[in-house]
Amino acid sequence: MSERDAVLFANEAFYRAFADGDGDAMETLWARQAPVCCIHPGWEPIHDRDAVLDSWRAVLDNPPDIRCIAPRAYLFGDAAFVVCFEAIGGDHLVATNYFIRENGRWKMTHHQAGPTRFAPPAEPPPPERSIH
Amino acid sequence: MSERDAVLFANEAFYRAFADGDGDAMETLWARQAPVCCIHPGWEPIHDRDAVLDSWRAVLDNPPDIRCIAPRAYLFGDAAFVVCFEAIGGDHLVATNYFIRENGRWKMTHHQAGPTRFAPPAEPPPPERSIH
Repeated sequence: MSERDAVLFANEAFYRAFADGDGDAMETLWARQAPVCCIHPGWEPIHDRDAVLDSWRAVLDNPPDIRCIAPRAYLFGDAAFVVCFEAIGGDHLVATNYFIRENGRWKMTHHQAGPTRFAPPAEPPPPERSIH
Repeated sequence: MSERDAVLFANEAFYRAFADGDGDAMETLWARQAPVCCIHPGWEPIHDRDAVLDSWRAVLDNPPDIRCIAPRAYLFGDAAFVVCFEAIGGDHLVATNYFIRENGRWKMTHHQAGPTRFAPPAEPPPPERSIH
């Protein structure tokens, strides 16, 4: 797996934990040694790991139907970020998820999501299934 | 100057260029070799350096009265980000500015700003000036 794919995989794991309301998976995703931060939509920045994880547990008590669309990874050695759209119900947000490589694994150090007036690029249609 | 101070200095230079409507200074601040991205408030992500700089020149044609409040730097070797509030007139936004070290200088690779329901922490009062 390329490093780009590994970063996108970590990003996808974040949205899976988010949609599944899986607080334990979410905790595993966030960096342990590096400092972390989180800006939920409309919130103020949360700067402390315990407070970040508490905020996620509150969010995940009632997880939204969220999907990541059009993720794009930017790599800078042991740091990376992914920019994407988030589809929540009929609404869209834009988000940046920031990762660092910690003990060989890509871990989150920051998440920021906010509103956008734009729709994400059209997704390719699902592959046609043969009826035969 | 510590690396933390150097990152905060680059962040401050960004807001100075922003408030001054200084497109040339803004261009100098953005990375040349590394890929860049930008999410203005409410916009969709802009992924190309030329398009990012064009967007800034459009914004800087009529620069807002913008100020950075409570910046906090997160360092990860040759990568870093700064989380801060932005005061624009009476409104506040939250922003993250991403930097990498390129040829020994901290350069921007990403900016995302969006609305917040929260006010920044109170700023310390300016130092008292002696009248003597």
